Amino acid sequence: MTDPWATSAVAAHVAAGVDLHVELAGPGLRSGLTHALREAARTGRLAPGTRLPSSRSLAADLGVARNTVADAYAELVAEGWLTARQGSGTSVAQRAAVPRRAAPAAAPRRRTPGKPAYSLLPGAPDLASFPRAEWLKAARRALTEAPNEAFGLGDARGRPELRTAIAGYLARSRGVRADPERIVVCSGFVHGLTLIAKVLRGRRVREMAVESYGLDIHWDLLAEAGLRTVPLGFDALGSRTGELMGLRGAGAVLLTAAHQFPMGVPLHPERRSAAVDWARTTGGLVLEDDYDGEFRYDRQPVGALQDLDPERVVYLGTAGKALAPGLRIGWMVLPEALVEPVTRAKGAFEWTVSSLDQLTLAEFVESGAYDRHVRGMRLRYRRRRDQLVAALAERAPDVRVTGIAAGLHAVLELPPGTEDSVVRAAAWQGLAVYGLGRHTHPSASAAARRRDALVVGYGTPPDSAWAGALDALCRALP
Amino acid sequence: MTDPWATSAVAAHVAAGVDLHVELAGPGLRSGLTHALREAARTGRLAPGTRLPSSRSLAADLGVARNTVADAYAELVAEGWLTARQGSGTSVAQRAAVPRRAAPAAAPRRRTPGKPAYSLLPGAPDLASFPRAEWLKAARRALTEAPNEAFGLGDARGRPELRTAIAGYLARSRGVRADPERIVVCSGFVHGLTLIAKVLRGRRVREMAVESYGLDIHWDLLAEAGLRTVPLGFDALGSRTGELMGLRGAGAVLLTAAHQFPMGVPLHPERRSAAVDWARTTGGLVLEDDYDGEFRYDRQPVGALQDLDPERVVYLGTAGKALAPGLRIGWMVLPEALVEPVTRAKGAFEWTVSSLDQLTLAEFVESGAYDRHVRGMRLRYRRRRDQLVAALAERAPDVRVTGIAAGLHAVLELPPGTEDSVVRAAAWQGLAVYGLGRHTHPSASAAARRRDALVVGYGTPPDSAWAGALDALCRALP
Repeated sequence: MTDPWATSAVAAHVAAGVDLHVELAGPGLRSGLTHALREAARTGRLAPGTRLPSSRSLAADLGVARNTVADAYAELVAEGWLTARQGSGTSVAQRAAVPRRAAPAAAPRRRTPGKPAYSLLPGAPDLASFPRAEWLKAARRALTEAPNEAFGLGDARGRPELRTAIAGYLARSRGVRADPERIVVCSGFVHGLTLIAKVLRGRRVREMAVESYGLDIHWDLLAEAGLRTVPLGFDALGSRTGELMGLRGAGAVLLTAAHQFPMGVPLHPERRSAAVDWARTTGGLVLEDDYDGEFRYDRQPVGALQDLDPERVVYLGTAGKALAPGLRIGWMVLPEALVEPVTRAKGAFEWTVSSLDQLTLAEFVESGAYDRHVRGMRLRYRRRRDQLVAALAERAPDVRVTGIAAGLHAVLELPPGTEDSVVRAAAWQGLAVYGLGRHTHPSASAAARRRDALVVGYGTPPDSAWAGALDALCRALP
Repeated sequence: MTDPWATSAVAAHVAAGVDLHVELAGPGLRSGLTHALREAARTGRLAPGTRLPSSRSLAADLGVARNTVADAYAELVAEGWLTARQGSGTSVAQRAAVPRRAAPAAAPRRRTPGKPAYSLLPGAPDLASFPRAEWLKAARRALTEAPNEAFGLGDARGRPELRTAIAGYLARSRGVRADPERIVVCSGFVHGLTLIAKVLRGRRVREMAVESYGLDIHWDLLAEAGLRTVPLGFDALGSRTGELMGLRGAGAVLLTAAHQFPMGVPLHPERRSAAVDWARTTGGLVLEDDYDGEFRYDRQPVGALQDLDPERVVYLGTAGKALAPGLRIGWMVLPEALVEPVTRAKGAFEWTVSSLDQLTLAEFVESGAYDRHVRGMRLRYRRRRDQLVAALAERAPDVRVTGIAAGLHAVLELPPGTEDSVVRAAAWQGLAVYGLGRHTHPSASAAARRRDALVVGYGTPPDSAWAGALDALCRALP
C-alpha cells in the first residue's frame, strides 16, 4: 500500500515534554515550519504559555537540520508569536491568544437581586465536609491492590467488590435484603431511573404513578422516556398509595418511602403495605428512592420498604448525600427478574462508572470510613436542624416547621399566598431558596398545589456560611 | 403530625463501628430482639463475620437495659447464630450463611478448549502498565486543590479544568481545532456516540454511513437508537467516502480516519476531503472516532480530520487506550451548532462522569504525565509490534501483516477460507483472538466479507504474557 502522507508532509512527535503535531507541506522546510507554527499560535491550537520542544529535539523528530528549527523559532520570536527566555526555552507568547467569541451584547437590565451569597437549596450535602483525606486514603489502597483486570471493561453490573460492600452496608444500616448478585451500580439516581424507565417502556408500560411532591427533573426524565407521570394524593400519612388500585395504566410507582421529598413524612406502614399489595396484585413495580435514608435524628427507625417484598420493590440509593453528588455513584437492588433486563439496558460492559472509583468506594465502605463519616455528618446536620428550629421559634414564631425528623431539609409552612413573595424577599437578602411550588407536580390536586411553603436545605451551606444563611432566611420570612 | 412508628418499633443506630438497623415490634423486648437478630443472620441481612456492637452501645441506642441485649446475644451464641470471643466482641457466625441460589445443573459437556491463557483481542491497552503511582499523585493534587463546588453537580459539559486541558492536548498532539467551550466530556466513545445518535434521531435522521469494518457494538448501539447503518466500500486507500453522495438517507458518517479499525490504513487525503465535502454539501455530519491516534510509530503524521472543517466534523476521543478503559472518560469536540443539543441530550447537570476523576485527569494532562505515559507506551508497543513482525517473518513467512504503522493491533491476512480454522486452532493453543469476520459489517460487500484475516491486539497482554501469546499465535497460523 502506498503511503499517501510520505511525500506531502513531515510529522513531529516531539520528545521534549509535549507531543506536538505539525504538518509541513511541500518544499521550503524553514518557511513551512515557520508558517505552521505561526498558524498554530495564531489560531490558538498552541495555547499561550505552551512550552515548545528544544530546537534540537524538534529537528530530530522532523528529520531536518537543527538550524532550520532554530531559525524558524528566531523568526517567530522576532514577530512576537513566541518568547525565548534563558534557561526556560521557547514558549508561545501571551499575546498570541485565540480570538474568543465576542461576549453577547448586554441585555437592558432590570433591577434584580445579585448573585445569591447563600444557598439553602435542597438536594446537596455540605460540600465542604467531603472527607478528602479519608477518600484519598481509600483511593490509595484501592489503586495499590486493584487487580490489573480492574483497569479494563468489566461486568456491566459493576465491580463485585463494590456490590458486596454495598450489600453489606444496606443490609445492616437500611434493612435492605441485598444480594450482591442483584445489585447494579449506576452513576446516580437519574441513571438508575433512566435504565428502569427504558425496561418498563420495552414492556409497553406507558404510565408511572409518582408523588404529588417531588423533583421536576425526575418527572421530565420519565416523560422523555415515554412514561406519563400521574401523581398520588398526599396527606399527613404520606402518599395515598390506596389510589394505585384505581390507576389502570400505571406499571410502577415511584416513592420516597423513608422520608418523603420534600415534605419529610415517612410513609405510613399501612400505605407501605398498600403499595406492595398493589404491586403483587397487578404485577406492578415499586421504585423506592432512598435518597437520604442515612440521616435520621430522632430514633424513628424507618427501614427500607424493599424489605417487604424484594421481588416487587426496586431499591435505589446513591453516595450523593452521604459523600458528594460529584462522585456519580449510585446503586439499585433489583428483583431477580429485573437484573438481566436492567443490566442489558445499561450496556454490554461497565461503560459508565469508573472501576477505580468503584474500588475506592468499596474500600471506603469496608474500612468503616463510610459509617464514620455518616455518623459525623448526622451529628452536624442534627445540630443545624436544631439551630434552624430554635432560630425560627425565636424570630418567626408563626412559621410551622415540618419534616425535621430526618434528612437534610425542612419544610416551612407559610401563610396562604405568600410563597412567591417570601422567595423573592429571600433573593433580596442574598439567599437562594425554593418554594414548595417548584416541587409540586403540575397535575397534583388543587389542594396540593395551593399549599404555600419553603423547602429549606439546611445541609447545603458550608459551616462558614450557615449563620449568614440562617439570618437571611429569618429576615425573609413574614 | 403523628409518628406512626413511635409505638410499633424501636430503632438502633449503633455507634460502635457499624450502623445496625433493627426493628422490634410489640412487647417482649428480649424475645423480639433475639428474633430480629436471628432473622437478620439467617437471611444474610447480617453477613457472616459482621461484628455486632457491644451490648452496652446497642442497649443505649435501643433504650433498653443492657442485660436485655446481653441475654439476646447469649441465646443466639448458644444457638450458633453468633460467636463471642474474648477481646473481639460478638460476630455473626460463619455457619449463618445466606442460602445462595443453587448453581445451574451442569450442561452436558462437549470437548472444547479451556479458558484461554492468553489474549490478543484488540481494543485494550496493556492494563498492567496503568501508571498507578502517577495517577494517584495527580488524584492527590486534584483532591487537595479542588474547590468545594467541585463535589457538587456541575456544568453538563464537564469540568472546565478538564475541557481546557484536553483542548490544549488535542491541539498540540492531534491537530484538532479545540475550544474548551465546544468540548463535552462523556464516559467514553459509547456514551458520546449514544448522545449524538439521540440528537440525530431528534432531527429525523434515520441512517448513518459506517465503514465496512468496525465494531458490532457500535452498529448495534446505532440500531437501537433508531439509526440504520450502511457500510461504505473499502480499498487500499481506506473507506470509499465518494459513495456518500449516492446515499440519500444518510445524515452522518462514522469514520476511523487516522487508523481504520481494524484494517489499519489511514484514510487517503482525497477521501478525507470527499467526506468533508459531502458533509458541507448535504448538511451531514462526520463523526471522527480517533480511538488510538496517540500511537503512531513510523513518522507518518495523520492529524485529525476535524481540522478540515470543525463545523462539520465531531471529534471523539477517550482515555481508554492511552490510560485505561476502566477510567470511563472520553470527550467530544463539537461543531458550535451541536454543543447545546448534545449537552442537553446529556442532561441538566454533569450526571455521568465523576468530577474528581475529571480534575485528576486534568491535572494528569497539565502536569505532563499524560504525554510522558503515552511516549513510554508508544516505545513499548512499537517494540512489541517489531517483535510480532519479526516472529511472523520467521515462523509464518506466508502470512502478510498490515496496518502496523500505528495503533495497538495488526491485521494478519490469511489464505482464503482459513480464518475460522485458525481462530479455532488459536483457542486450542490457549489464545483468544478474533477473526476479521467479527469486525465485518453484515451488509458489507461480498468481497469485504470474503476476506480472511486475524486481528491481533498486541497491546493487550501484560509483558509477562507477551512471549507466550506470540508463541501461541505462531503455532496456530498455517
